[in-house]
Formats: sequence, C-alpha cells, structure tokens
Amino acid sequence: MSEALSPFRRVQVTRVGRGADRRREDFAAAEEPLEVRLHGKPFAVIMRTPGEDRELAAGFLLSEEVIHSFDDLGAVEHCRHPDHPDVHNIVDVYLVGDAAARVSKHLDQRRNILTSSSCGLCGRLTIESLRCRLMPLEPTETVTADVVAALPSTLRTRQTIFEETGGLHAAGLFTLDGTCRRSAEDVGRHNAVDKVIGAMLLQDGIPLGGHALAVSGRTSYEIIQKAWFAGVPIVCAVSAPSSLAIELAEEAGITLLGFVRDGGFNLYTHRQRIAGV
Amino acid sequence: MSEALSPFRRVQVTRVGRGADRRREDFAAAEEPLEVRLHGKPFAVIMRTPGEDRELAAGFLLSEEVIHSFDDLGAVEHCRHPDHPDVHNIVDVYLVGDAAARVSKHLDQRRNILTSSSCGLCGRLTIESLRCRLMPLEPTETVTADVVAALPSTLRTRQTIFEETGGLHAAGLFTLDGTCRRSAEDVGRHNAVDKVIGAMLLQDGIPLGGHALAVSGRTSYEIIQKAWFAGVPIVCAVSAPSSLAIELAEEAGITLLGFVRDGGFNLYTHRQRIAGV
Repeated sequence: MSEALSPFRRVQVTRVGRGADRRREDFAAAEEPLEVRLHGKPFAVIMRTPGEDRELAAGFLLSEEVIHSFDDLGAVEHCRHPDHPDVHNIVDVYLVGDAAARVSKHLDQRRNILTSSSCGLCGRLTIESLRCRLMPLEPTETVTADVVAALPSTLRTRQTIFEETGGLHAAGLFTLDGTCRRSAEDVGRHNAVDKVIGAMLLQDGIPLGGHALAVSGRTSYEIIQKAWFAGVPIVCAVSAPSSLAIELAEEAGITLLGFVRDGGFNLYTHRQRIAGV
Repeated sequence: MSEALSPFRRVQVTRVGRGADRRREDFAAAEEPLEVRLHGKPFAVIMRTPGEDRELAAGFLLSEEVIHSFDDLGAVEHCRHPDHPDVHNIVDVYLVGDAAARVSKHLDQRRNILTSSSCGLCGRLTIESLRCRLMPLEPTETVTADVVAALPSTLRTRQTIFEETGGLHAAGLFTLDGTCRRSAEDVGRHNAVDKVIGAMLLQDGIPLGGHALAVSGRTSYEIIQKAWFAGVPIVCAVSAPSSLAIELAEEAGITLLGFVRDGGFNLYTHRQRIAGV
C-alpha cells in the first residue's frame, strides 16, 4: 500500500521523560481531506483517515439526506482522472432517479462548504429542521445486558490502527447476538460512524433494525442523528452522552447506553429493549 | 443559575451491572445550539456547552478569519430582545472598521451553514486556502520539560464539569512558568479551544506569544490552525496528534507535544523551545 493510502504516517518523535530522551520513529494516524463530488461537482470536503472512502461518502450522504437508500446510488468510486494528482482523495458519486433530480438543489445549498470530521450538522439552517422529520423507531427487538456490555471490548479488539497510533475513534455495527458485522476507525468519530453505516448502505442493508451501534468515545447529538437516519435502534458508547444526545434518543425511539465498561452500563432511554432490566 | 444556562442537565439513568440495577438521577454535560449573529444576521450555529458564550463567539470568529484582533470587535453580547425565548442561545456580534466592511461578504459565504462543535474548517473552499496565509511563529521562547509535562494534570484539576459528567473536553492557556491563565470545558474540543482563545481576545491579549495551549484529547489539524491564528507557540495534548496536525505544526513554527502524561511526553516539532531537550 502506498503511503498516501495508508491509515498511518511515519513520524519522527523525541520521547522525553523517564530516563534518557530519545529520538525515534513512530506512527501517527493519517488525516487527509476527502473531497466528495456529486455528479462531478464538489459537494463537501471531509477531514478523514484514508480507507473505506466509498463507505464514508455513502454514509455521509445518508446523514446529509442527499440519499435515503441504496436505490438512490448510481455509482460511488474514486476519481479516475489520469492527470489528477490526488485521485485517492476524491470520491465521485452519481445518483439516480429522484435523488439525481435533487442534485443541483443540494449543490446550491452546500456550495463552498468544507466539512470537518463529517459533522452531520454542517450546512443546515436550523436546529428545528433536524427534528421530527422521521418516525420514531419501534421497540420490536430486545438484546441481553450481557451482550451489549461486551460490545465495546469486542470493538476494541478490532481497533488495529489505534493500537499503532493511540489516535483514532472507532465505531462498530453488531447484530443482537453480539456479532460484529462491520467496524471502522477514523480521526473523526462521526466519520467512523459514517463508514460503518455507509458500508451497510452499499450492501443495500439500510434500515438497520436488529442492530446495535457501538462507539469508542462520547455520544453527541449528531451520532444519534446518524443512527436515526440509518434506523439503528440501539447505541452504546464507552463514555458519556451529552444532554441533547439523550433528548434526541428519547424522541427517536433509540435505546441509548453510556459508560459501557467493566461489565456494566448506564441506560438513558427506551430501556424496554434491554431484556431483564 | 437557571437550568438553561447551566453546563449540566439532570437526567434519569438506570445503572446496570455489578449488583442490583438501580434507577437514579445523574448529570449529563449540556449540549445546546448557540447562534452567532453578525450585525443582526445569522452567521453560524455551534453545538456547545452553555457558558462563556461571548468568549466562544469571539474565538470562533478569529478562527474563521472574520476578525483578526480585539480592535475589530465593536460589541459581543447575548441577544436582549425581550420577546425571544432563546436569548441565552444567541450572541450578537458587531464589528468595526475594516472588519465591519467585510461583514456582508462573510454572511454571503456562510449562508445556511450550521457549524457543529465549532469545526474550524466549515465554510472553506479548499485545503490549500488554509495554508501559507500566515507567517510561521518565531522560536523566541523556551519552557522547561517539567513545566509542560505538568500542564495536563493542572488542567485536569480545573475540569469541574467533567468531574460531574465524565463527558467534556477541556482546554487551558498557560504562561511558560506553568500558571493557568484560562481554562474552559465543552462537549466540543474545538469549542473549548475557542473559549480560552476568545477570552484572551476579549482582553486584547492576542497574539499569545509566551503561552502554551493544553488540550485534554487528541490534536487535529484544526486545533493547530486555531493556535496559529492566535499566535500560540506551544500546543500539548494528553493524546495523539494526527499526521496533518504534525505537518501543520511544522509549517506554523509551533512546538507540538503529544501523550503528555506520567511525567513524560512525545515531542513532534520545533523541539528548540523545550529547554534541555
């Protein structure tokens, strides 16, 4: 793999403290801009860790409500222009049907926007516009407390880039027996979520009823928003949720867990999905 | 303090695991939208933890290059319209001089943009446009390894909201003898940085030569970008930097430290500012 496509970069570092200072080579998590183009025109630039770029683009466009399902996607592929120096940092997306008809509207709205770490709210006019467009998810499934309590440690074993660099967020999608269907790492935690959801979207696997999303850090409003758009009914995080994440999960019908560690967790909303609680 | 202005929210939580499950009250870090208005018109909405909103707005506008110094600011204040229900979530900013003359250009560029967690790159057209507009910072100051190694633990003692909620990022500005001049907490790590830099800006304290910025988490490109705009020559983080953070710090003349913990640290760039290394 060429360095440009690798999720690591070699860096020179001086380690100071606890004995003699020493100069050595280390690895840093790669962060590079990904340009997402719609029908050949720039739509957004996302600061991301290279890898799973097609998945990231698909998940991002779902969160941005540019697409709603696999059926809206014609093609999602890296730029193949032979003269362009940065083809690995450009993904071209072509839509079909009604979604294609809305492309110019989206391009007008997003013009000149550079999105950082795939923050789902960029380019939106009001908070109110984000609420109440979707139906709450129905509580048709249950999962055992033991299964959800184990998801973050399973996710952690799959964080191979983190092991090298100590610098990445992770997200994983699990079935309700605890099987990991997909995981991803990224410098941006929203990107990691977009990558796993986008991967399922590219397999025509949305909506994701019967799945749980696990994230390595905190839960913000936007993580819940992304889960809602993808129809994921359970979200568990190693750290704390924000107040607005809890409010939105309540409204979305999403079961939200925080501080999932050491065999226990905090359950904030829609506890009926956790068997025996 | 009314709940709307508090950095906490009371939430009901069920704790599961290690003994009997129990329902109890807990605190979550508050996350609410802050609308920043320029001359009465919406400029950006930032998802943030309430508190130090004027400072956040000032720091954000510095990072967005809407202002360059204290002299550009006429007024920064919460909306005082008697009929508006959310005045605590709106900050009105009025500029003076050349900055005021550029307001309509900024408003045109930013129209309809909702910025999440104060990501410094939103609304920008190209990566290239972010580089090379500023001169690198001169290495005129030095600091001892012992002082920088202690900054994160000093910052940690000031994280009072984190103690309650476990859910916040923090940033602190220190003089080079290790004195904390300002610290802030927020659900968004970029917001925490904007709050401490904005606080200094409101005291006409920019550029911040002779200061170090400490952050509680990882270092991304945007954190370095914010430090550069504010003239902070040293940035230390508890966790890892991204590859692009290291590249930009090299270019900016900023001394970048990571993994600052347990009395040691990794030194990535411009090591000449650390005495004895």
